[in-house]
This record gives sequence, C-alpha cells and structure tokens, in this order.
Amino acid sequence: MKEYSVVGNSVADIHGIAKATGSADYTDDLVLPRMLCGAILRSPLPHAAILNIDTSAAERLPGVKAVITGKDVLGRKIGLYRRSADQYPLAVDKVRYIGDEVAAVAAIDEDTAQEALDLIKVHYDELPAVFDPTEAMKEGAPNIHDAERNISHRTSMDFGDVEQGFKEADYVREDRFTNGAQVHATMEPHVALASYDPSGKLTMWMPNMSPFVKRRLLSRVLDMPESNIRVCRSYIGGAFGGKSMLFSLDFSAALLSIRTGRPVKITYTREEVFTCVQKRHPFIIELKTGVKKDGTLIARECRAITDNGAYNYTGPLAIYLCCSALYKTYRCPNIKYEGVCVYTNRMPSSAMRGHGKISMRFADDSQLDIIAEELGIDPVDMRLKNARQQGDVLPDTSKVISCGLSECIEKTAHSAGWKEKRGKLPPNRGIGISCTHGQTAQNIGPLSSSAAFIKFNEDGKATLITGAVDNGQHTETMLAQIAAEELGLPVEDIRVTAGDSDTTPTDVGSFTMALTFVTGNAVKAAAADAKRQLLEIAAERLEAKAAALEARDGRVYLRENRDKGMSFAEVVMAGLIKGVPILGKGYYMTDTEYLNIWTGMGKSVPTYSFAAQVAEVEVDTETGQVTIPETSAAVDCGFAINPLDVEGQIESSVAMSQGWTLSEEFFYDQGQMLNPSFLEYKMPLSVNVPRIKPIIVESIDPQGPFGAKDAGEVPVHTGPAAIANAIYDAIGVRIKDIPITPDKILRALREKEASER
Amino acid sequence: MKEYSVVGNSVADIHGIAKATGSADYTDDLVLPRMLCGAILRSPLPHAAILNIDTSAAERLPGVKAVITGKDVLGRKIGLYRRSADQYPLAVDKVRYIGDEVAAVAAIDEDTAQEALDLIKVHYDELPAVFDPTEAMKEGAPNIHDAERNISHRTSMDFGDVEQGFKEADYVREDRFTNGAQVHATMEPHVALASYDPSGKLTMWMPNMSPFVKRRLLSRVLDMPESNIRVCRSYIGGAFGGKSMLFSLDFSAALLSIRTGRPVKITYTREEVFTCVQKRHPFIIELKTGVKKDGTLIARECRAITDNGAYNYTGPLAIYLCCSALYKTYRCPNIKYEGVCVYTNRMPSSAMRGHGKISMRFADDSQLDIIAEELGIDPVDMRLKNARQQGDVLPDTSKVISCGLSECIEKTAHSAGWKEKRGKLPPNRGIGISCTHGQTAQNIGPLSSSAAFIKFNEDGKATLITGAVDNGQHTETMLAQIAAEELGLPVEDIRVTAGDSDTTPTDVGSFTMALTFVTGNAVKAAAADAKRQLLEIAAERLEAKAAALEARDGRVYLRENRDKGMSFAEVVMAGLIKGVPILGKGYYMTDTEYLNIWTGMGKSVPTYSFAAQVAEVEVDTETGQVTIPETSAAVDCGFAINPLDVEGQIESSVAMSQGWTLSEEFFYDQGQMLNPSFLEYKMPLSVNVPRIKPIIVESIDPQGPFGAKDAGEVPVHTGPAAIANAIYDAIGVRIKDIPITPDKILRALREKEASER
Repeated sequence: MKEYSVVGNSVADIHGIAKATGSADYTDDLVLPRMLCGAILRSPLPHAAILNIDTSAAERLPGVKAVITGKDVLGRKIGLYRRSADQYPLAVDKVRYIGDEVAAVAAIDEDTAQEALDLIKVHYDELPAVFDPTEAMKEGAPNIHDAERNISHRTSMDFGDVEQGFKEADYVREDRFTNGAQVHATMEPHVALASYDPSGKLTMWMPNMSPFVKRRLLSRVLDMPESNIRVCRSYIGGAFGGKSMLFSLDFSAALLSIRTGRPVKITYTREEVFTCVQKRHPFIIELKTGVKKDGTLIARECRAITDNGAYNYTGPLAIYLCCSALYKTYRCPNIKYEGVCVYTNRMPSSAMRGHGKISMRFADDSQLDIIAEELGIDPVDMRLKNARQQGDVLPDTSKVISCGLSECIEKTAHSAGWKEKRGKLPPNRGIGISCTHGQTAQNIGPLSSSAAFIKFNEDGKATLITGAVDNGQHTETMLAQIAAEELGLPVEDIRVTAGDSDTTPTDVGSFTMALTFVTGNAVKAAAADAKRQLLEIAAERLEAKAAALEARDGRVYLRENRDKGMSFAEVVMAGLIKGVPILGKGYYMTDTEYLNIWTGMGKSVPTYSFAAQVAEVEVDTETGQVTIPETSAAVDCGFAINPLDVEGQIESSVAMSQGWTLSEEFFYDQGQMLNPSFLEYKMPLSVNVPRIKPIIVESIDPQGPFGAKDAGEVPVHTGPAAIANAIYDAIGVRIKDIPITPDKILRALREKEASER
Repeated sequence: MKEYSVVGNSVADIHGIAKATGSADYTDDLVLPRMLCGAILRSPLPHAAILNIDTSAAERLPGVKAVITGKDVLGRKIGLYRRSADQYPLAVDKVRYIGDEVAAVAAIDEDTAQEALDLIKVHYDELPAVFDPTEAMKEGAPNIHDAERNISHRTSMDFGDVEQGFKEADYVREDRFTNGAQVHATMEPHVALASYDPSGKLTMWMPNMSPFVKRRLLSRVLDMPESNIRVCRSYIGGAFGGKSMLFSLDFSAALLSIRTGRPVKITYTREEVFTCVQKRHPFIIELKTGVKKDGTLIARECRAITDNGAYNYTGPLAIYLCCSALYKTYRCPNIKYEGVCVYTNRMPSSAMRGHGKISMRFADDSQLDIIAEELGIDPVDMRLKNARQQGDVLPDTSKVISCGLSECIEKTAHSAGWKEKRGKLPPNRGIGISCTHGQTAQNIGPLSSSAAFIKFNEDGKATLITGAVDNGQHTETMLAQIAAEELGLPVEDIRVTAGDSDTTPTDVGSFTMALTFVTGNAVKAAAADAKRQLLEIAAERLEAKAAALEARDGRVYLRENRDKGMSFAEVVMAGLIKGVPILGKGYYMTDTEYLNIWTGMGKSVPTYSFAAQVAEVEVDTETGQVTIPETSAAVDCGFAINPLDVEGQIESSVAMSQGWTLSEEFFYDQGQMLNPSFLEYKMPLSVNVPRIKPIIVESIDPQGPFGAKDAGEVPVHTGPAAIANAIYDAIGVRIKDIPITPDKILRALREKEASER
C-alpha cells in the first residue's frame, strides 16, 4: 500500500475545541440586527378540514409584525421529488396529523409570538383518522391525500425467476418482521434564521445536510430563483438524515422575513422536534426465503409496507432502499419485492441513518439465523457462504468493485471470540452476528456531484473551499486531510471554508453516503490542480522541470537534490508577484445513472461498502432487560482517511442501533405522540453502551479518494439483527418486532415456557 | 465601437435599496453571541515618555474582561512597508501625539469599558513637542523617532538636465504652495469586530479597502499566519483611502478577543475619527518652472515637504505621488524633485482620495496660470500645448497607452463656455481650469493582482466570487456588469459575493485606482472561462461546434439558426447531470514592475487616466465667501462601464475637492485638534455644491476591460487649481494656501488694494 503522510492517520476534529468550549455558534446562537422571533401554530387534531382561520386578533397584538397561513404558501408543495411533493409548508384546506403546521407569526419576542399563536382562531371540521398503515390500505379507510388505498408510492422489483427458485429450494421459510419509529434526537433542535434584503436576496442559516439541496427546495417552494437564495454555514448539532428536507420552519422564517423586511428566527422546542418533525420509517416486512440444503440462498420474495405518516417526504426512497437491502448484502439469483408507502394520520416519516435499509437488514439477518439453525449451519458460515464478493454484478446491473464483507465477517467473529463463545456462554448470555452493505454515493439526481476550490495564501498554507457540510461527522477535518495529503502540507496548514451555497461550489451533501467518495474526490482533484500550478511556478524559479520536483511538508524541492528547493510560501509569493495566484479547481461525479425509484434498476451506485457486527448480550429473564457487554463491529470503508472518525462512526452506529433495537419507542394515543421528551423517550445512556471493538477493513476501492468508500451509516444496519440473534442465542426466544423491549422478552419467554410445558 | 448590452449602460447600485432602507448591516450593526465592548485609552499629551501604566484598578472592575497595553503588542509595528513600519498598535515607551493609543479594554458593555479606561493610571514624563514640519527639520528639534532631522523618508528624482533646461527657458517662475489637512469624513466611523475561536482562527469584520491587505497587515502585527485570519465582508460606509491601513482598533479588538475568547467590538466616536485616525497629508511645495516663450514647459524643479504626523503610514507613498503629479500631466523634459516626509507631534497623515497628487496638481496648475498670464497665453491653450498625448514615454519609462487629456480640456472648456466667459464675466465672477492624470493600477506590491470565480447556478444565473470590496463606489455593481456582458446575461442575473479573505480569491482592493482595471479584467477572464464551459456543454447537447454558438440574454443558440438553442438553466442542468458544474476562474495582473518608492523610476503604472475641470466662481468681496455656481468636469476613464457611477464619481470628487479647497480645516492648539465634529469642521453641504456638468471621455484603453481605466479619484485633483484660478480671474488675487478661506481672500484683497494704492 502507498505510504501517506496525512490520510490514514487519526486526526482530531478541527472544530473539536470550539465545540467543547462552547464557542461554536449554532444557528440558534445567532443574532441579527432587528431580528424577530417566529413561532408556529399546529393542529391539535389528527385529521380535519380547515373551515376558517381568523388571524385578526393576533395581528392586532402589539409587537406582532406578521401572521401567515396556508393562504400565503404560493401553491407550491414540499417534496424530495416534484412528483411526490404533497405538503404545503402551511396547511391548506386540511390538516393531516397532530402537529401539522397551520399558521406562523413573527413578533418582537418569544412571549409575544406565543401569545399571538393563542389569539389565532382556527375553525376545524374533524374527519375520521387512521393511524395504522394496514388499516389505511383497507377499503373505506379515511382518505388522507386522494391516493388510492392511501398508497403514495410503490416500488416493485422482480429479478430472476422466483417461482422457479422456490421450486429448487430445499427449504423455504416465511416470517413477518416489524419495527417502530425512532427520532434522530440531535442535540440541536430544528431552527431556521432567515434574512431577506430588499435586493430580493434571501439569506438563511439552518442546520442542513446540503446547502444546495436546501436552496433548491426553498427555490421551488418560495418560487424564487436559486441565485436569490443563500444558505450559509453555521455549526450543526447533528443531523442523521433528519435535517435533509425542507421544513415548515425554513419556509415560515423565509416568508415572514420577506413579509417584514426583518430577519426572523424560528427555533423548535424539543417537544416539537419529537412530535412534528420526522422520524424513522416504521416497516412491516413479510419475507419468504428459499435455500439449498447447504445454506445457499436461491429465492426470496418480500412484501414491505412503510408508514409514511401524513406526508411523503422520503417515503419513496425508503421503500426502494428497503428493497435494495434485500439483495445486495448476500447473493441470491431470484428476488421479488413489492413495497408500498402508506399515508396515515401520524407525523411524517423521513430519512434517518440506515434509511429503509436497516429494517430489511433486521429482517434478513434475523431470518438467516432462523434458517441456519434449521439447517444446522453456523451463522458465520451461513453468511460467508452467501456474502457478496468483489466482481459480483448485481441484479440492478451495478457492480461490486471492491468488497471486504467476508473479511468483516471473519474479523468480527474472531474479535468477538465467536468460536470460543457460540453455544458455550453462561446461561442467558448469547452471541449473534449480522451483516450489511452500504450504497456508496447513490446517484439520486442532479445534485449528486461535488466541486471544490483550493486557494493558496501568502503564508504557503491553503484554504479549501467546499460546499460540504459538517453535521458532526468531522467532514471538514477529513476533507482537510485529503487536501493536505495531495498538496504535501501538514493537515494544520489547511483551512476549510465550507457549506455556503453562495461562496462555495456545488456539493453532494451529507446524503447517500456520498460525501467522502464524491466530495473527497473533488477535493483531491482541486488539490492536484493547485499542486500542478505550484510546481509550475516553482519549476520556473528553480530552473527545473515540474516533473522533477517533489512537494512535501510545505516545501518544493528537486527530487534528485533535496537541498535545492523553496518553501510553499516563497512559491506563492513568486506567483503573486507575477500575478498568478494559485487557485485549484476540481470536481467529481460518479459514473452512474439516476436512481429509478420505481424499480431500482440501473447502475445508480458506483460502489458498495460493507459491514458486520457480532454482539454479545445478557438477558435478565426476571426483568426482560437486555444488556450488551461487548460488541465487535467491522466496516469495509475502502480506506480509512481518518481512522479515529471511522471508529467514531462505528461507535455511534452501535449506540444508535442499540437504542432503536432495545428501547426507543413512540407511544401514540389516537395520533397524539405521548412521550415527547428525553425523560420519557428512552435512548441508551453512555453507561448502557457496550464495550465496542471497532474494526476497520480496507478494501481500497479503485475509484475512491485514496481508496475510500464510506463509513458513516453502514455499521448502524448491523446492530438490530446481531442483537436479536444474540438474544435468541441467549434465551431461545425470537423477537421479530423492534424495539425488543423487556415486555416483549417476558411475553415471549412466557409463551416459550407455555409451549414447552 | 463594439456594441454592448450591459456595460456602457447606467445601472443602479445593486445594494442601493438595502442602503437606502437601512437594512444594510454595517460592522457596528453586527452582534455576535457573548460579544464584548472594547474601548481605547489615548494620550492626552503630544509627546511624552510612558513611565508606568497601572491597569490593576481597571482589571478589578466587575465586567472588565481584559486590559492590554504596549506590553502586549508582540514587538511588531504597523506600516505600509516593513521598512517604514514605525508604530506599535499600542504605544510602547512613549506617546507621540494627542490621541496616541496607550491601552485598550474589553468589558461587558460600553459604560463599563469607559469606566475601566478612567481607572487606568498612566505616568508620563512630558517631552518637548513640535507641530510644524519645517520646525521639526531644524537642528535641536524634539526627536520623535530617532530619524535624522525627523525626516522619515526621502524621494528624489532627476530627469533630463534641469540646469540646462532653465538656461534654455525664456521665463522662469518660482512659487510656494501649501495645503492643510482634510478628514475623509466617512459616514461610517472606524470600527472593528474580532472573533477568535479556539482552533486559532481569527475572524474580523471592519470597514476596509481590501480584506487581503488588512489580513496581511494583521498577520504581520499579530505574528499569525495569513491563513489563520479571515476578514469578512460587511457593508462599508465610505473609505476614500482612510480605511486602508491597520488601525489600533483592529489590532486591539483582535488581541482582546484572543485574550478573552469572546468576540470584541470597538467603534470609534466621531471625535476619535477626527482626532486619532488619519487625515490628508499637509504639504509645502516650492515649485520653480522654466518655459519657452510659446508656453512650452522646459524645466521644473521642486522641493516638497509633507507633514507625516507622528507616524509614517503612507507618507513615503505620498511624497512619491506628489512628485509623479509634477511630470505626468504635462510634458516637460527636465525635472528635478526632492521630497521629504517629516515627523511632527500631530496625528498621522495617510492616504486620501488624491493622495499626494492633489497637492502638486494644485501647485502646478496654479503656477501654470500665473505663467500663462505673464506670457499672455490663454490658460486653455497653455494646457493644450503641454498636455500629455497618446504614445508619450514618460521619464520613469512608463507609457501613455491611451490619452483623452486634450479632449477633456476641450470638452470642459466648451461645456463651461470658456470662450464666451473668460474675461467677459460680470465683476467678481471668474472662470478657471485645471488638469490632471491618474495612475491607473500602480503596482505597489505582491497584492497588486486580482482573481475571480464565476459559478453558475441551477437557474442559469451566475454568482461572481470576487475579493473586491465596495466602499460605496458600487464596485460590485460594476463587476456584475462586466460579468453579465461577458456571459451574455442581464445584469440582474449576476449575484455577487465579495470581499471576504477566506471565501474569495485574492484581490487588488480599492487602492491605486486599480479595481476597475485589474479586478475588472480578472472578472472578465473568469466570465470568459465560464462561458467557454457553458458553450462546450451546450455544443454537445445541440450537436454543434462551440464556435458556432452564441450566448445572449441567458440563452445559447446557433448563430446561423437562432431557433435552435437552449436556456442557460438547461445547459447548467445538463452539466450538473454529467457532473460538470460550470466554474470559471480568471486572474489579471498588469504588465508592470514594483514601484520604486525612492525614485519613482520604472514602469509601475500600466496606463493613465486623465481629467480636466473648468470651474466658475463668484466671490463676495465683502465677506470673502466663494461660491461655485457651476463647474464642468471631464474624466478620461477609458470606457465608462457604468456611466451613472462615473458621473457620481465626478460629482463626489467635485464636492470633496471643493471642501478641501474652500472650507475644510484642522485647527490645532499645541497638537490638540480643536474642531473634531461636523459642527465645527466645515464640509460643503448639498446646497453649497455647484451645478456639476459631468463629461465622460472614452479613450478606450486596449488593456482595460472593455477599454476602461479608472474614474474614482482623478477628478478630485482638478478642483483646487480650477477654483483658485477662477478666484484669481474673478478678483485678481492669487491664494497659494489651501483652504482658501474667506479670511485669506479678504487679507489678499486688502494687500492687493494696498499695493495698487
């Protein structure tokens, strides 16, 4: 492997101290001259026609500067795709869930804004509501959006010959797996600050996963050209997919600022984040699998239903991704999938780390263990037998260019002591494995490419200008490493200016596990371009050929005579003096096609990452409480540009999937979410998180920057089935419904006892 | 002349509405979380040793977060050139003028900061002071800086053979001209907001004339690499040269922020701006001129002294520029110049619109009228005879590439009705002319080049990324016009992001009349680069050669078949879909050498602009009051990219030079400035300003963007002598000391009467 100076080494986050000391300014910290406070009025009913909204009393309240309602929404809807857009930023004619946005106010302070909300009178005509997707699909169910049987989107795939496959199977198994919602639980709530200036320019600060995507969505909904909208960088306190879309508060802050000519900030309360933003998609997955005697998968048929909630958001994507997770981790020649997104009168679902895929990976790897047991095959061997390998061509026509899945399986099994522990642990302790793939840099539309600039300063250090955003995953540090490596500078000598739709070039954003791969390549190209210019100027000064020069540690010198050289600062000044500033430009786009959301066919993914996890659990059979003493989690990220961060991603993935698997749950009563606080919504605390043994597998992808693919999302998929399988190994009960809470364990234990009696 | 769609048309400032409605945020409007208020303690003495500073009481005051003094200045001095740097940002060991900065505090609010200043005890040992440059040069004068005879810099030039020239002259004349100071009187006072983050990055907002120059000066004085400093854009309320240097408040805000880890803002009071920032250089000019009988200039010898004040700032540049103004407007083969900058115990002088040159233009064009009268030559003819012409090679080796001086003279004379009025006006009314050149884009160092990026957005509009700053001269509008013209877009479709040392590429700044010429060319190049990319993508889509395409009004089409085409937005999307964002890059540097500040020799100026003005005055011989009913002012700016702005520059130049010539004056008592307010310092009001007839002369410089040179500064030079000459024409008295206040007029009238009696 090539020797690198910067990439491949662990580097602390360049913003770490600012964040740890509290000097990092998040959007809610920002104050603009003449800024107003905005607030949003929400529906108290799950489904109702709006007969009339009387805002006159609110408008008369001193200190209130503007009130907007559905009448002000310009007839344009929010949606990831134009086709699936189905939500006005403020409700028009009817509300569809408890929390649906009805009106927004801007006032001189928070108290006045809240008082104004109380003065708005909305006359509703309540309609029958439905909260369960299977109920919603039934004949005569309440009609939420004029969609037939409330189905908003359908993805169908049919590869090979499933009927024939099942005929050839030695063993066929059918199971039903279900899962609930999960909140992103970012430390920073959703917030938007908008400032409209009279030249027609709207400037916004808000947590986001791509300023360019936010700009595009705002442009559509506000009917304003992209060029008139600027989304600025601010520190972002977590996203996990939950800050990717346009929200009512983004739109409302913008429109209120346009109305008042003053900046307007809206910050959601924690309760609003829980009840009115978005959550992970609940799924019902019916999975039928046929295998040969030796464990080889031969046919799979699946029906998946997801609860979209009241609006579409990323539902169509979720139902596709769920399907992709069925056939990409393990080989299987015959696949049939039918997935539907169904509207209900609950808060909308949307993208969350592991989007759609995690549900299928739970189902698939749970069922694989059931089958392995039936066939008497060790779960690790079962996985190694079916695991994807480099060179595989997938049914959708994409290719597995690099693949460390088997290595992930072997290394986690080894790290966890699989052979020593499986079947040999003390009572109520068990060990389980699960695997997954990740879809690196899936092409989901015209904003799937990245560009970057590199600018040398007079001190010989460089500024990287990138549209990438850092939601907490240390994006800027990782990109600085790539630039530093390529330029021949220490990483401290790279300054990053990032995530601003005006001042930085287009960027793919923190979606679709694309950032390292796509933006990383763009930054590498920009750095190579800058270095070429640097060497050209140096060559002239050193009277040598550029090809004979080497750049390292901020110095350019003759490869054959290291003493003959000059510092980068001297080269930069030499360039400036003759009017040639060093300005590198680079861009990158994967060699892919747009994702076809209805079938998934086509090469929309350039390469795949992989992961495996072996979890060890202990179950308290008295209380039903599950603890995880230890887990070994491996990820094939291609190449770890910053191993510290890859390990961090593994650790946070383990914790996040642990929460979803064991404790995090949305309780509803007639569409009213009942536990909207961190007191009542049970996330793992640091003391609950297992000892995590992170393992980095490097398959060196030939397309990735220095071989890198991605690491951020994929380990999250492996938690649920690894834990569920370990629970089965520990106490012999199989729970197919996430979260696996103590009550479900106890009930299952009682049923097991009853059946054994 | 080529036909243009955008350039050459008057366009209203893109920030006009924001400024007029008060929504534009200037630095003092900005508020950052945890921001502190800073204030500066100043010397009450003109010259004193600092024996001791006791800050303990101030430090103990609740709410005070930091106090800094000369002990904290890192041993580094402020200066335009490293060699001439002579001022610590806070005084070390001694103070040299009343207002000299001694200490700075940061506190939770302004009152606390002011109270803290009162608690700082400084023990001074007063030293003898000197306030007059000629006194300061005398043996035994107080020693301000250990400079011999208090002379800080000397510029000498000697072209041709002056002795021989005077021998050949038919007439020789010697005069002494003097002028006082002038304050820039920007509506926005000096202000700095600094925010240091724990990663070591210092972010600053302050009015400036180039974020890159500010960054470089801060880097030197704070001993911090340039890459660690960011100077951001904010709206700027005027500069006129007065915001070009580093000031104590910039440094103090920065150091206080570093100390406290919190943002610190310091805003000067109007009194501080008057007494402690900088002012125009007072000059004493002794000018000897020899002419042939026909008026041809044959020899000139000049001795100039400028009052530097207590510190150097741009003094060395001023004394060079004064000299350049002696031999560049009019031809003369033999020139000798000796100029000195002299320290005094008054507030420092620095760059101001017309820097150094205006003093010489007043002297030269006043003396020319005296000579013309002696020789019986009409002043207009006298100027036409000696005026520079295209193709001239100047003594410093630079060339006159394009020249509209004669046209300026003729057009102003015609516009003013010279022939009809000269000698024919009613009593006490007179008419006078004056001329000048401007040194477009003089190369004063490594920051003399500009670069720019152009970025296309999905809507087909473009964002221009430039480091240029807009001090009120509508820079961004002018550059948007250049980009629009080159790209084939209407000007409204260009969005500008400007003036930020991190997010924008290097820029020459609003100095040396370089912005239109240098940045304009860089923007034009960036736009051409972007357009090339646009045409390439369109060519592929339209199945045509790029060369066969035309881009206009946001549409690309076949030149031969205009119906076959596509919108820019479609081209941009086509590029994005294949991963090719359109990103143009351009840079420009004049083909020049560095200015040699000691001799002025070398081609440091790529081209020259020219101007002439004919002013008509009326003198009230009872009160000595001069009014200017009308003035015709012409500028050869090469090409008027935005005629509205060129006219605005002419008008504001007329007003500014009128103020300096007739009323603006600094009154001192022992180094104490006595009139530091707009009540006591008399600037012309709008009712005092004459009817101005602006004339644009376009000589189309082959190097300039669309032929443009510059317009911002040069008309200011022509006011003083035109007015003085008109006064002489009106009442027969010649005032050689600026400002020409009523008392000087009355005294001269009395002397004239006495001599005539």
